[in-house]
Amino acid sequence: MNVRAKSRGSVSGKPERLWFDELSMKEVEEYAKTRKVVIVPVGSVEEHGNHLPLCTDSLQPEYVALEAARKTKCLVAPPLRYGVCNSTRGFPGTISIGFKSLYRITLDILEEFVRNGFTRILVLSGHAGQSHMAALRLAAQEVVWHHEGENPEKRPRIMVCSDYDFAYELRGKHFSDRDGHAGTIETSRVMAIRPDLVKTKGKKNYPKLPRFEIVANPESFFLSGIIGDPTIASAEKGRMINRYILKEVIKLIEDLKH
Amino acid sequence: MNVRAKSRGSVSGKPERLWFDELSMKEVEEYAKTRKVVIVPVGSVEEHGNHLPLCTDSLQPEYVALEAARKTKCLVAPPLRYGVCNSTRGFPGTISIGFKSLYRITLDILEEFVRNGFTRILVLSGHAGQSHMAALRLAAQEVVWHHEGENPEKRPRIMVCSDYDFAYELRGKHFSDRDGHAGTIETSRVMAIRPDLVKTKGKKNYPKLPRFEIVANPESFFLSGIIGDPTIASAEKGRMINRYILKEVIKLIEDLKH
Amino acid sequence: MNVRAKSRGSVSGKPERLWFDELSMKEVEEYAKTRKVVIVPVGSVEEHGNHLPLCTDSLQPEYVALEAARKTKCLVAPPLRYGVCNSTRGFPGTISIGFKSLYRITLDILEEFVRNGFTRILVLSGHAGQSHMAALRLAAQEVVWHHEGENPEKRPRIMVCSDYDFAYELRGKHFSDRDGHAGTIETSRVMAIRPDLVKTKGKKNYPKLPRFEIVANPESFFLSGIIGDPTIASAEKGRMINRYILKEVIKLIEDLKH
Amino acid sequence: MNVRAKSRGSVSGKPERLWFDELSMKEVEEYAKTRKVVIVPVGSVEEHGNHLPLCTDSLQPEYVALEAARKTKCLVAPPLRYGVCNSTRGFPGTISIGFKSLYRITLDILEEFVRNGFTRILVLSGHAGQSHMAALRLAAQEVVWHHEGENPEKRPRIMVCSDYDFAYELRGKHFSDRDGHAGTIETSRVMAIRPDLVKTKGKKNYPKLPRFEIVANPESFFLSGIIGDPTIASAEKGRMINRYILKEVIKLIEDLKH
Amino acid sequence: MNVRAKSRGSVSGKPERLWFDELSMKEVEEYAKTRKVVIVPVGSVEEHGNHLPLCTDSLQPEYVALEAARKTKCLVAPPLRYGVCNSTRGFPGTISIGFKSLYRITLDILEEFVRNGFTRILVLSGHAGQSHMAALRLAAQEVVWHHEGENPEKRPRIMVCSDYDFAYELRGKHFSDRDGHAGTIETSRVMAIRPDLVKTKGKKNYPKLPRFEIVANPESFFLSGIIGDPTIASAEKGRMINRYILKEVIKLIEDLKH
Amino acid sequence: MNVRAKSRGSVSGKPERLWFDELSMKEVEEYAKTRKVVIVPVGSVEEHGNHLPLCTDSLQPEYVALEAARKTKCLVAPPLRYGVCNSTRGFPGTISIGFKSLYRITLDILEEFVRNGFTRILVLSGHAGQSHMAALRLAAQEVVWHHEGENPEKRPRIMVCSDYDFAYELRGKHFSDRDGHAGTIETSRVMAIRPDLVKTKGKKNYPKLPRFEIVANPESFFLSGIIGDPTIASAEKGRMINRYILKEVIKLIEDLKH
Repeated sequence: MNVRAKSRGSVSGKPERLWFDELSMKEVEEYAKTRKVVIVPVGSVEEHGNHLPLCTDSLQPEYVALEAARKTKCLVAPPLRYGVCNSTRGFPGTISIGFKSLYRITLDILEEFVRNGFTRILVLSGHAGQSHMAALRLAAQEVVWHHEGENPEKRPRIMVCSDYDFAYELRGKHFSDRDGHAGTIETSRVMAIRPDLVKTKGKKNYPKLPRFEIVANPESFFLSGIIGDPTIASAEKGRMINRYILKEVIKLIEDLKH
Repeated sequence: MNVRAKSRGSVSGKPERLWFDELSMKEVEEYAKTRKVVIVPVGSVEEHGNHLPLCTDSLQPEYVALEAARKTKCLVAPPLRYGVCNSTRGFPGTISIGFKSLYRITLDILEEFVRNGFTRILVLSGHAGQSHMAALRLAAQEVVWHHEGENPEKRPRIMVCSDYDFAYELRGKHFSDRDGHAGTIETSRVMAIRPDLVKTKGKKNYPKLPRFEIVANPESFFLSGIIGDPTIASAEKGRMINRYILKEVIKLIEDLKH
Repeated sequence: MNVRAKSRGSVSGKPERLWFDELSMKEVEEYAKTRKVVIVPVGSVEEHGNHLPLCTDSLQPEYVALEAARKTKCLVAPPLRYGVCNSTRGFPGTISIGFKSLYRITLDILEEFVRNGFTRILVLSGHAGQSHMAALRLAAQEVVWHHEGENPEKRPRIMVCSDYDFAYELRGKHFSDRDGHAGTIETSRVMAIRPDLVKTKGKKNYPKLPRFEIVANPESFFLSGIIGDPTIASAEKGRMINRYILKEVIKLIEDLKH
Repeated sequence: MNVRAKSRGSVSGKPERLWFDELSMKEVEEYAKTRKVVIVPVGSVEEHGNHLPLCTDSLQPEYVALEAARKTKCLVAPPLRYGVCNSTRGFPGTISIGFKSLYRITLDILEEFVRNGFTRILVLSGHAGQSHMAALRLAAQEVVWHHEGENPEKRPRIMVCSDYDFAYELRGKHFSDRDGHAGTIETSRVMAIRPDLVKTKGKKNYPKLPRFEIVANPESFFLSGIIGDPTIASAEKGRMINRYILKEVIKLIEDLKH
Repeated sequence: MNVRAKSRGSVSGKPERLWFDELSMKEVEEYAKTRKVVIVPVGSVEEHGNHLPLCTDSLQPEYVALEAARKTKCLVAPPLRYGVCNSTRGFPGTISIGFKSLYRITLDILEEFVRNGFTRILVLSGHAGQSHMAALRLAAQEVVWHHEGENPEKRPRIMVCSDYDFAYELRGKHFSDRDGHAGTIETSRVMAIRPDLVKTKGKKNYPKLPRFEIVANPESFFLSGIIGDPTIASAEKGRMINRYILKEVIKLIEDLKH
Repeated sequence: MNVRAKSRGSVSGKPERLWFDELSMKEVEEYAKTRKVVIVPVGSVEEHGNHLPLCTDSLQPEYVALEAARKTKCLVAPPLRYGVCNSTRGFPGTISIGFKSLYRITLDILEEFVRNGFTRILVLSGHAGQSHMAALRLAAQEVVWHHEGENPEKRPRIMVCSDYDFAYELRGKHFSDRDGHAGTIETSRVMAIRPDLVKTKGKKNYPKLPRFEIVANPESFFLSGIIGDPTIASAEKGRMINRYILKEVIKLIEDLKH
């Protein structure tokens, strides 16, 4: 995504590295000592109506991660762009991995960062499905328990959140309480981050979803793949939301630094 | 990586999409009918000496995948940037996932593409470690067996290769027979693809590695993390190698189309 | 618990069976045809302060399940009294099983009820931890997907909820917004259901818990094991809450019947 | 079951707690120091002819556990009421969980009791199927090996038995050598423990079962679900058997205490 | 073992093949049609006192399998010489694999024979540990269930037994009731089958083993590794026992043929 | 196979033991101190044309292992005669186990030898399929990592190779570059080791196999099950090849001894 290129701005002479994996072996060894927070962006390949791209959940946390990294001097791990998408699996384009797959790869990635001395980690997911988030948290829980008895210096501190934990705090005030998947907020954010990937205006849709029933075909309850009103989205709204999320994420990173 | 941005060139008016996840739900449904081959680039986060970045194995197949996609009208799946790195796990910066993690997530991803109607798939890995490749092949094997009895139209065809399956065919003739990890070929390729990420000239190193012993610390056998001679690498050599690989990969894609 | 005994009231001559496993082979075969909804109560063995018993999360859903079964003529499965308790695992008395254990046993139980012809199932959990609920939902999801292609008659319909999904709807209006684990609501309910198991008045505690950090020792953030104010609890409040939950659960069962 | 209610007799003023999960956090901490043996009753949901309830295998060990607990001042864990029932899976009403599910949940439960300081544990199963017992023993074996190198004070001691290990010692003398599932012994015991759940007299049946063949439909070899002669069962016989089992179980507990 | 060589006697001109894996592809295809029973011998690598070899449990069923194959015209699969040895794991020389490992490999082997058209299988184990036998039976159970719905012609029939299921029938009459591991019976059998591997006379030992406790170090209860009296063993007794077992095993094979 | 019998030659009076499992408990304890190298032969049950037996891949490494053991005074573990045979699974007679099954049992076996003090191990496989070898190496990798932090004396050293790693070094010079499965080399070796098991002359076949495609039915690409020219095989060639492999294997063992 442009996200990646755009944000890799150089500073002065020597380019500043935001992506963990653009470092060399030697550089990473130094970073491990001085700038320990690593953000792990997690996305998904998931339908977001006919107006937003499948990578919608990937580009949002990657954008926030890079902006936050630039401001807080932390690093961004290579994104994991596949997630668990139970409720949209029936739509064309959704590539949903299993709970266990996400859990295991996240566990391995977190353990490896810790082994490399990067013990302060923020897992930031653009996708916020329940199973998906549970897999990420379960992996993080295993890692912190695994290192529980160790020297406090080496013991990992890991946070797991979705940028929708913050975005949805703006519902009620600025947006409909029922805005959701591919709705006003999400559409606005993509308009701000990658306008070239927004294809149509979308259609307003406030479906009634089953609250407790676990159904085989949740897509039949919102056939357009939209929950909310993308027609009133704007890049300006998106920038406002992104600023808000960024501010909150930076707070978490500052907390992790201490 | 720039790879991603640079190659997303537009063609005429409406931009041409190479990345699968930049499509919308509706677009992906159409593509499923007409342009079925999907390339899944797989990389790693792995030391490549002090002169190359950790993403070396990611940016190579992503470059090839995008060039091939542009020429053959196929699509590139979101890359998987984490791999199994048994022999370099002891070096700073290597983030190695387990065999089972790679196997499982690859299995899920392949099954999901098949379920979406994308039944022609090329898994292209920049990393070529034995366990890593075995995990990819095992996942592919499960998928083709799983669909064995189905209608030939729906039955998946999957290829798994590393771009080093081709690059190493140039050894002997153009390069040392013993050139390997972070050596002349790999350094040249990165110089051609992302020169800004090449940091020093590297150091020549032709280590003697244990052939059959499975050791706990393979890094002790090549402390610089290099196998080969990066000092004689050049962008021009890299372009030549990339052209060769691209040509071979395109042949595979053409085969998959029929 | 008394719950079990008390609620097994006979009706007229022949006692009415509410517990699934009090039926004989022959009876169960008949029930499979006429009274298909089965409630599976899930609890935990988990500290609830010094004033409430470890079985607090078990006796609540079992009470609701039996009352609902009596009113709707459905059956109650043998309760599963062990759950996943990540945030209270550090307290004395918590017996927490792993995510995978809960997932697997729930999956097996649900599949077996379906195989026996009991295709309408309500999983009702007194414990509401995120991982715990995710395991239950994941198991249910697998089951409904597993039977997706089958005859609608045989296809299972499964709901998963916690009675705290309803109890917490009363916060704001009747109870503090921050009332939680072993607080006013939970204490009141136990006072209504099993007053003999309430040992002291408890202590008011409104702790600040980490919102996103996954910590190894969450118990250090609320040392009394209480979140909320048990001192203002009463049996009368408990009865009111129980009535509300019961009403909502009965709606779900009625929905499942059709 | 009535079992639960009936046996929860109070002693003098303050009720005596037999069930582990009726304790509060504080009480459990004290018990961990003074009354360490915990009995874990394991049952099943399994056909037992048309005359006995599906909970037959649950109510027997729960009855014995409570009686033994009362006499030896030990505690009874919340029962696990689901077991592995390979040979009766084909009958209506049997809810059989997989070997691995039983193994895993038992492993977790045992480890958690040990972690809480309850290191003397008796697993008492009413169901005695080979796979079922093997899963329980395998879990116990893992736990004792896991703690092998620890301080003897903290090292767990775990026993695993079925109450049918004792009941069947009475065959030959008092009962037919071929009495088994839902036969004279089992029917008598239920008549003594929960007469209200005995529905008919049952039918005598001494089937010839395959000795070594692992069949898909073992139920076809004893269509009534009975092995033995329930028609000669009596509550008095049941009380005698229960006394015998109780005496043997108490011996095990006394052994565990030292 | 000599077992293997000795029993591979040729008959007349063309040698008769008893070992499945001495057949060629073409021969196996023919055998699949006409001589369907396959015996899978399972052994262990396990201490048997200082007088018997570690392969004691392997050579017994292999001997019986070959003799039975010769008489019934069935085939012997390559033996599996590793088993689950929980109670002797602490002795020198015991190589014990895990329950899951034995279960999985047995499952795969059985499924593969069935896939090849060899649907009548006798698993004959020389080792008779509870967990070991449970793993074998569990694997067989999965296989028969897996093929339950298939054409009766193709549906597998699988038997699982230990030759000690028969050998111990001779206790009481011919041997001590308490004879066991490396005792009179086992020593006699090895003396009959492979006298060159019997090293000393052994020592009489009737230990008291824990009946229900699952201990970490069962070896401490019978330090010589012997249960029974090897000093009164003889090759003649061994031959008698072997004849008896052989007769019983042949009955099973005849049953499988029909 | 005759292999086993033939090679168990006695030396002088007391027979020399080459097979690990022919030792007694006491003997094995002594060997653990003085002659630590253990060779674990791994084979397969796999078609090898109509001219070679299914045990072809088993008898080769067993022959080499025994010869090497005799010359270097090391021990041979009971062979594992089942392997992963993805590319020949479609032929009659192939009994292929899954990757995970081979991985797990190998892991267990290696860990057990190490636990017994046999820390120098050579895994020698006659089958050389990619997945098969990957499973063996992965198991070995886990074991060496598991013991990484231990005392150098106790730390295992494990080598994994196929005797075809050496045999194929003779291609080009002595044999066709394209000789492979059941071809000149393999046929010659079996003619040297077990001539009685060679059934016909075989047929020459140089098939074109898919290089990168993972196919469901690889057998369709070489219907005779042969890759190479068995018609020019001879026992003399086989002896030459075996001598060469033996020499190389002995080098590995000598390396492991130090």
